[in-house]
Amino acid sequence: MNARTFTIQLKTRGNDHILDITDEIRRVVRESGVATGQLAAMVVGSTASLTTLEYEPGLVRHDLAAALEKVAPRGGSYEHEKTWHDDNGYSHVRAALLGPSLALPIVAGDVPLGTWQQVVLVDFDTRPRTREVIVSVVGTAGGD
Amino acid sequence: MNARTFTIQLKTRGNDHILDITDEIRRVVRESGVATGQLAAMVVGSTASLTTLEYEPGLVRHDLAAALEKVAPRGGSYEHEKTWHDDNGYSHVRAALLGPSLALPIVAGDVPLGTWQQVVLVDFDTRPRTREVIVSVVGTAGGD
Amino acid sequence: MNARTFTIQLKTRGNDHILDITDEIRRVVRESGVATGQLAAMVVGSTASLTTLEYEPGLVRHDLAAALEKVAPRGGSYEHEKTWHDDNGYSHVRAALLGPSLALPIVAGDVPLGTWQQVVLVDFDTRPRTREVIVSVVGTAGGD
Repeated sequence: MNARTFTIQLKTRGNDHILDITDEIRRVVRESGVATGQLAAMVVGSTASLTTLEYEPGLVRHDLAAALEKVAPRGGSYEHEKTWHDDNGYSHVRAALLGPSLALPIVAGDVPLGTWQQVVLVDFDTRPRTREVIVSVVGTAGGD
Repeated sequence: MNARTFTIQLKTRGNDHILDITDEIRRVVRESGVATGQLAAMVVGSTASLTTLEYEPGLVRHDLAAALEKVAPRGGSYEHEKTWHDDNGYSHVRAALLGPSLALPIVAGDVPLGTWQQVVLVDFDTRPRTREVIVSVVGTAGGD
Repeated sequence: MNARTFTIQLKTRGNDHILDITDEIRRVVRESGVATGQLAAMVVGSTASLTTLEYEPGLVRHDLAAALEKVAPRGGSYEHEKTWHDDNGYSHVRAALLGPSLALPIVAGDVPLGTWQQVVLVDFDTRPRTREVIVSVVGTAGGD
């Protein structure tokens, strides 16, 4: 049984920037040597999220953010902004709703995603950020 | 320490069809022989999600979908549909919001769900699908 | 390799009460003796959720609930309430959307959260509840 952790560093533009991190996730799984097991991935910080999405421009540049605009609009009124005198109340709300983490199985040394299913980081903050995604991989080197 | 992975196959009707997969999840946990540990479950594909829900007709046939209709309406305008000339932009957005995966603890060889809490697969696609839920179980055969 | 499970018991006020459970999560990780690995945390029941959030009064007392009010309003019409003649249809919908579980990495015996990122339990039920969060910790006592 192995347990390894990895840090993936990413530069984002903020403002609902969605990054495809599937290659990075697959790389750390290979590096871990785990063939059968699972991973826990978490983005550090309270204004970004992890989920899966078909990584095509329509969804990535428009549709997901447009839906969240209905729930936590940029121009809305947030008590958070009165606490800190900042401008990213909607970023915090969107991030909490979408969630910070994913639990993914590992089969034959890979994550069994669909062809049109990518692991994505969504940065809801209002400025460019350097983000860290921490990935824990646990499992065995052998087959099932 | 054991690590096992399982594939659960399910036929759905699409169109927000919600299936109770608690029995299947409990069965693979029993089969794994793990008494103390955790599972990672993921649905393959970018138009379906996993969550927990009280599996009763009101929530299952109406309430959850009605809420998502406010965020990602069926009749809405999606850039995704311009990319692919298809009709399931809202399916992708709903699936990304609800999320593809669950991380669940295993205690005494079972998942400690509440009585009114079921593990569900929600298929947001616009047609019947055959879905795969991949489950990784890791842990020990012994007690805590 | 170790696998341990823990139960955290919490008293809530219901009605979107958000509790910071970071200290409790960190405590069970320390108790587990796991230095490198991951945890799966799940709230028992179908009217509460786990996520991460900056635990400050604006977000905690107002902003998150205000956003969910747009998706699953308290005064809305829910088929669930016709099934059971109760009043918490919106609680079930909010809980299913936010999700019951988190998968978090463990690095150097701790959860690598951001400074402004807390693990929170959100209780959407319409009355005070005693809640159980079950945490599974798996991993090794050694370093990476």
